Amino acid sequence: MSPFAHTPEPPYYAVIFSSRRKAVDDDGYGLMAQRMIDLAARQPGFLGAESTRGEDGFGITVSYWSSDEAITRWKRDAEHLAAQRLGKDVWYEHYELRVARVERAYGKR
Amino acid sequence: MSPFAHTPEPPYYAVIFSSRRKAVDDDGYGLMAQRMIDLAARQPGFLGAESTRGEDGFGITVSYWSSDEAITRWKRDAEHLAAQRLGKDVWYEHYELRVARVERAYGKR
Repeated sequence: MSPFAHTPEPPYYAVIFSSRRKAVDDDGYGLMAQRMIDLAARQPGFLGAESTRGEDGFGITVSYWSSDEAITRWKRDAEHLAAQRLGKDVWYEHYELRVARVERAYGKR
Repeated sequence: MSPFAHTPEPPYYAVIFSSRRKAVDDDGYGLMAQRMIDLAARQPGFLGAESTRGEDGFGITVSYWSSDEAITRWKRDAEHLAAQRLGKDVWYEHYELRVARVERAYGKR
């Protein structure tokens, strides 16, 4: 499966989530991360996501959305809220989240 | 050194660069990647960058800029243009680049 998101022509929105994991509970974290990707993919307005993490525990996940409203709705999803809480309390040493409007895009095809 | 960028209050701009490397020329690539980060950091309008790559060769680098003009200027830098050409021809199997305007941001401090 390709790690690249197949997004439409801009404009659309991106959530840039950069994080450093603590070296704890790899299994629980992995299960929840996959669950959140599966759940996000079923939300209205979800366009795709790209995610990677290096051996140092620092990772970046970018999810793409058709509108800012879709992002806000996903942020407030009950199961997602529970995961956010665990992320903050248990799994992440630090994180930064940025919401951005994609204005142009190109790639090597 | 922290892998997180210390960005100001939005608005500012982000360049989201996702790529999959070919398994070639690790040394040359590593040197060039570091050189480009050093060079970018000296450009007017550069605010910071975050970067990671997993064992599968898929990576995401997000650089942050004060304006779209600063991004365009950096894209046209002569040494950067040469690196872009090598990236396209030699190092990257595929990449996607998205320019986005960051509208809000928060983190776990």
